[in-house]
Amino acid sequence: MKKNIFYAQSGGVTAVINATAAGVIQTARRYRNSGSIGSVIAGRNGILGALNEDLVDTKYESTETIKALRYTPAGAFGTCRYRLRDPKEDDSEYRRLFDVFKAHNIGYFLYNGGGDSQDTTLKMSRMCAQYDHPLVCVGIPKTVDNDLPITDNCPGFGSVAKYVATSTREAALDVASMCKTSTKVFILEVMGRHAGWIAAAAGLSTTKAGEAPHIILMPEIAFNEKRYYARVKQCVAQCGYCVVVVSEGLRRPNGKFLSEADERDAFNHAQLGGVAPLLADMTKRALGYKIHWAVADYLQRSAGHIASKVDANQAYALGSAAVKLALGGTNAVMATVVRKTDKPYRWSIGHTPLSRVANKENKMPRNFITRDGFHITAPCRRYLAPLICGESRPPYKDGLPQYAQLKNKRVKPKLKKWKDGR
Amino acid sequence: MKKNIFYAQSGGVTAVINATAAGVIQTARRYRNSGSIGSVIAGRNGILGALNEDLVDTKYESTETIKALRYTPAGAFGTCRYRLRDPKEDDSEYRRLFDVFKAHNIGYFLYNGGGDSQDTTLKMSRMCAQYDHPLVCVGIPKTVDNDLPITDNCPGFGSVAKYVATSTREAALDVASMCKTSTKVFILEVMGRHAGWIAAAAGLSTTKAGEAPHIILMPEIAFNEKRYYARVKQCVAQCGYCVVVVSEGLRRPNGKFLSEADERDAFNHAQLGGVAPLLADMTKRALGYKIHWAVADYLQRSAGHIASKVDANQAYALGSAAVKLALGGTNAVMATVVRKTDKPYRWSIGHTPLSRVANKENKMPRNFITRDGFHITAPCRRYLAPLICGESRPPYKDGLPQYAQLKNKRVKPKLKKWKDGR
Repeated sequence: MKKNIFYAQSGGVTAVINATAAGVIQTARRYRNSGSIGSVIAGRNGILGALNEDLVDTKYESTETIKALRYTPAGAFGTCRYRLRDPKEDDSEYRRLFDVFKAHNIGYFLYNGGGDSQDTTLKMSRMCAQYDHPLVCVGIPKTVDNDLPITDNCPGFGSVAKYVATSTREAALDVASMCKTSTKVFILEVMGRHAGWIAAAAGLSTTKAGEAPHIILMPEIAFNEKRYYARVKQCVAQCGYCVVVVSEGLRRPNGKFLSEADERDAFNHAQLGGVAPLLADMTKRALGYKIHWAVADYLQRSAGHIASKVDANQAYALGSAAVKLALGGTNAVMATVVRKTDKPYRWSIGHTPLSRVANKENKMPRNFITRDGFHITAPCRRYLAPLICGESRPPYKDGLPQYAQLKNKRVKPKLKKWKDGR
Repeated sequence: MKKNIFYAQSGGVTAVINATAAGVIQTARRYRNSGSIGSVIAGRNGILGALNEDLVDTKYESTETIKALRYTPAGAFGTCRYRLRDPKEDDSEYRRLFDVFKAHNIGYFLYNGGGDSQDTTLKMSRMCAQYDHPLVCVGIPKTVDNDLPITDNCPGFGSVAKYVATSTREAALDVASMCKTSTKVFILEVMGRHAGWIAAAAGLSTTKAGEAPHIILMPEIAFNEKRYYARVKQCVAQCGYCVVVVSEGLRRPNGKFLSEADERDAFNHAQLGGVAPLLADMTKRALGYKIHWAVADYLQRSAGHIASKVDANQAYALGSAAVKLALGGTNAVMATVVRKTDKPYRWSIGHTPLSRVANKENKMPRNFITRDGFHITAPCRRYLAPLICGESRPPYKDGLPQYAQLKNKRVKPKLKKWKDGR
């Protein structure tokens, strides 16, 4: 009997993770047509779908729907934030997964996610070896945070980078128009709990001195309140206004998140969340300017309408490559983007052992951040620039983007209900 | 000597106010070529440009640059929040304006703004009559708030509506993917201090029952905390998640802004601003769900990359019409959009006396809001739907929108420096 492929999406979603799904499904369909494999079975809500035998057979989705996944943001099969137990302590979850995979004739395990998910895939491949379970395990990278090692970048990042650089440029025009009599400082909070890649991408909006963003605050550089105020003041004096882009994970010199409790905590800032409103409040108190702030939150990572074409193409290519790797029996690897040249940007798809990427975090190198800590350098710009290129546009109907809607037809369960011991 | 046109932008900017500028300048150029008028002289930072004799001669801008204004967001000449004094108490500002206009041979006054600006234009026309100063005054509507009467809608609104409906749809896909194990409620704060038009526009994203946004909170309906929690809870139970769009101007039954000081004020919420983080905090305390929130702020009104084509076309047509009205000697009017039919949407440009629009505020009619106060009705949808149609796209370079950059060549001042008595 021809083996099926299991595919699931894990962790925070992106504008292009469904492009990877399209790459997986379209490529697998070609092999299915030639008779070498069965269907792509997707897990509902990531690995939980496998544990709960909540599976979707993608063969019921039309060619048009799968094509539409290429520009549809977020996770079409649902994702989860769920970490499997350490098999050394309790391997019941892994044994359950083997049962489900056996029952549904799964021979290939494709897991699409960030660092945690690559770790899950690695553990899975080790358990397979230990239990002699025949399953080829391949990881596919995805994360707006761009914090996986080895791969040139992580699908999802290029699109959030494009959104953030575009929004910064546009909001800066707004502030520039108004600064004479109104707002002088605009603060945009973007994602990035531990690494400043997303905030750094706003720097692409600057094409010459004086252009916004004037200040980028990244988790890699401890926040120096005094130097920050001085820079804002100088900027308002010189340009008339100041645009600040700040990572949600900005930290004080003592290592605490700026948005965490400290002596100001009568205000309960930490609970309300949001470094932008806090920084706006601090800046206003210190300098007296009228300030506006925005928190993009999910808007930035779900913005299919302004997705990067390079990003969408890479996401698709990684999905496609993962199928080929799996079918070729290349086990315990993650598909990667390999950069060949910066300008023109040339890339190909490679792969790397999962052990080299699992649970590793790729922060901004120091030479990507200017000496003063407030902007990005030329090498950083050279790295980032190609990732936002090209527009991957959804079709519009009645003025709004039209995104894929899957049937998500459930596969009939064959096993007893899984009782989660947690 | 041929008379010049004075044009200025006032108040909060929009994605399409520069399209109006393009309409004014391109139309005026045609009359200039035929020898009937001089140049379009723009005020830097709105009316302040006239007071301070800080004027720009637009004749130095290339045809390409003026064309590019059609898709360039924010105010290319700068705007101001500045209210002229009541001439009954102190008419020195008006007399200064007459001096400046005389010195620069201005025969036409085109002022592009919201309710306050129409009031300024009205006062200006009355002062002209009183002092027998030859100046034709024409107002051009602009405001994302959509709160001017008579005109079908206000340029700028259609584009923010398109941004908000698109972002709501995209973020909803994100939450739907994640809700199984993570975020259950997403709250998006949008502009609208007194009227709920912008929040209402998010409702266009809903095409069938159960689709986001599930709850729209507008200033027109007093916030009922208990009913809101009940609805969120019901929605999470039915759909698995709940998307809320809230106007910044949401009010409690006592008339106070939700974000204003009350008994919770140990947290100093009002100063931090932002109804979304406050509502998120309240919802979390009441229901215990994991919650995310976003505040779009300037991003929503400067988003040239997702501007509505209908909106941009109307903004341009209003600028063009204002020139023709002025040259035809039609004084003390505002150009308006006249709706002829809903579907297909057919419109033309008309005009109305400034006295009918100055300082009037157009809120959402009660029959545009569902009886329960949480969504929009079919008549509202019929009104809003055409305004977001079509995509007005900027060109892209290196992955980012390329917007017009004006030379803004200053006209040599001829008068003594204006000493503001304030």
